[in-house]
Amino acid sequence: MAERSLIFGADEYRGRIRRLQTEMAETGLAALLLTTPADVFYATGFLTRFWESPTRPWFVVVPEAGEPVAVIPAIGAELMARTWIGDIRTWNAPDPADDGVTLLVDVICSLSRSQARIGVPMGSETHLRMPMADFARVAERIVPRSFVDATAEVRRVREIKSEAEIDKLRTVCEIADRAFARVPEFAQAGRALESVFRDFQIALLEEGADWVGYLAGGAGRQGYADVISPASPEPLTTDDVLMLDTGAVRDGYFCDFDRNFAIGPVTDAIRKTQDALWLTTEAALETLRPGMRASDVHAFMTADLLRRGVQPARGRLGHGLGISLTEWPSFSPLDDTVLRQNMVLTLEPSAEVVPGRFLVHEEDIVLRANGPELLSARAPQILPRIGG
Amino acid sequence: MAERSLIFGADEYRGRIRRLQTEMAETGLAALLLTTPADVFYATGFLTRFWESPTRPWFVVVPEAGEPVAVIPAIGAELMARTWIGDIRTWNAPDPADDGVTLLVDVICSLSRSQARIGVPMGSETHLRMPMADFARVAERIVPRSFVDATAEVRRVREIKSEAEIDKLRTVCEIADRAFARVPEFAQAGRALESVFRDFQIALLEEGADWVGYLAGGAGRQGYADVISPASPEPLTTDDVLMLDTGAVRDGYFCDFDRNFAIGPVTDAIRKTQDALWLTTEAALETLRPGMRASDVHAFMTADLLRRGVQPARGRLGHGLGISLTEWPSFSPLDDTVLRQNMVLTLEPSAEVVPGRFLVHEEDIVLRANGPELLSARAPQILPRIGG
Repeated sequence: MAERSLIFGADEYRGRIRRLQTEMAETGLAALLLTTPADVFYATGFLTRFWESPTRPWFVVVPEAGEPVAVIPAIGAELMARTWIGDIRTWNAPDPADDGVTLLVDVICSLSRSQARIGVPMGSETHLRMPMADFARVAERIVPRSFVDATAEVRRVREIKSEAEIDKLRTVCEIADRAFARVPEFAQAGRALESVFRDFQIALLEEGADWVGYLAGGAGRQGYADVISPASPEPLTTDDVLMLDTGAVRDGYFCDFDRNFAIGPVTDAIRKTQDALWLTTEAALETLRPGMRASDVHAFMTADLLRRGVQPARGRLGHGLGISLTEWPSFSPLDDTVLRQNMVLTLEPSAEVVPGRFLVHEEDIVLRANGPELLSARAPQILPRIGG
Repeated sequence: MAERSLIFGADEYRGRIRRLQTEMAETGLAALLLTTPADVFYATGFLTRFWESPTRPWFVVVPEAGEPVAVIPAIGAELMARTWIGDIRTWNAPDPADDGVTLLVDVICSLSRSQARIGVPMGSETHLRMPMADFARVAERIVPRSFVDATAEVRRVREIKSEAEIDKLRTVCEIADRAFARVPEFAQAGRALESVFRDFQIALLEEGADWVGYLAGGAGRQGYADVISPASPEPLTTDDVLMLDTGAVRDGYFCDFDRNFAIGPVTDAIRKTQDALWLTTEAALETLRPGMRASDVHAFMTADLLRRGVQPARGRLGHGLGISLTEWPSFSPLDDTVLRQNMVLTLEPSAEVVPGRFLVHEEDIVLRANGPELLSARAPQILPRIGG
């Protein structure tokens, strides 16, 4: 296990750092401080499930020129040394008195002149994965340097996927495609939803997922009441429409799409909603182009659903996808992001079947110059029926 | 799926809130702002894997008296309504212009007098799961109220597990026990470590895990170089000692322990280290009592390992466990936490076999008045051998 990181070659990461540095130069950032699993993985290739432990903070500092510096707990030194990162500073964490603060201050100060502005993602869809009190200590000790928001810089780079990333995303979507194809093997009437959830996770692993980062779902005669619930012990019935939505992970890349199944005969309202959602997705697949705004896509899908006589659900109708289950932008009226080529996105139209009950479709795409290329295998137009 | 949260009855959560409010009263906090998956689950029972999406912030405000208020994205309203929480305020997230800020400010201000101190966990092993820029906006708008660190208050309550929680932790440990017992079915020489990882996750699911939140491991002739790596595609050999370490989840509660397996004959150094780690764990199981400090446990285990002629690994030798994979305290020289009855902890002695190669043992316990009660089934004294 002494091999270097196997996810991508160093050139992939060098390109990312170069693009980050281009953004940083435009806004005058002398360095960038990254703390989250996604941002650290993006810059370094450091991939571990150890982020599940909230105990230790991890830092990567990207200077305005040159290679990033990893400032990390000693427990991660061995794994980080297998990535392309050459400069790795460690401390023996957790240290309640100084959990990397001094080391991080030293690195930031050595990489930037004294009046420098240091970027940290502070805006929408970000958080700082370190104790707030420690961040305040770092901020105090780097004065007259100051921390400023770098959400836009990170976002503009991460939003555009390289072909190597798109290959990874296609691979994980294919894994989920194969697992979804096996749902009829284990989702019959009488089986508890929690058993179906377990079997679906097993199918994802068997089909090649490294792990299953996300799974939600629901079931009901007229759709489901929410889309983020864990499984209930209740059995499926022949009345149910079942939805499973997964974010499986392979090589650190997520898929995020769902599939719906009729356990028995479906209602007219379900049939009508299914048809509308499928056709609206079809229309979106024909319509999306670089240059449109995220809010345009929301407006287009909403109008298309209304035209087909169904009521769009409140909330966004799709979003970015990559090394997190969800990324910027959002297909919502509030997001004016201009779509760019090689953004990877989900199309997620959702409509109310009866008051309080919904049907949700979702596909994963990469936006090319001439429109969307599907990463997930297109869902069937007719709701697949499992039961007899 | 209209049932209320099934994890615990409302009394369990009411007890937690009462204990938090007792701590808050002692330090004069008028309210507590919680933002992380663990803290929100702890206060409300709101259990979802949707935290995997970094897009939306979620807030729970615990007032100095009375019940908590959930301030959450509309997408979570249905699920939160199935918990014991009665006061749920929602907004249509994500909203880049105001992602819950105004709603949260209103709730904090309505629940506290104008000079109040509002607690937020800001210290060791915590982070704030919301955009930093939004937190700054909230802080500005609640003036003359101010945010202060509430790590100690939350920690003192969460560290002590109720009997209902201990039952959940025992259940998930038993699930992992059964999955570890099946490792010989799929961990033979010639199999890729990544296939073993997949099969082990499948075994955990089959044995009753809701999901597998964490899995790491390693393999090598003289132990492994690190303990946080994802799987490699390299095949196991008859020379290897294999270690698997899991944080499986059932009803929101984690186990965290590992097991070691000899794929073939082992070296004398492995045998000696195995023996020392097992006996040191045995000695710790006999020695730990409420009233000892976490640093005492580290000192005791270190001395015991040295006495047995092996070199303890750098870093902590165990930690808290519960609704996160790792929780306070740490068995490290730097942690002076006094151990209390009904803390759930891991004993994790680790020693160097040869330079740069380690063997790690781990057991999960609950600390009772008269000493540790095992939650994991005790590992065998002799390294179990899989190969012929």
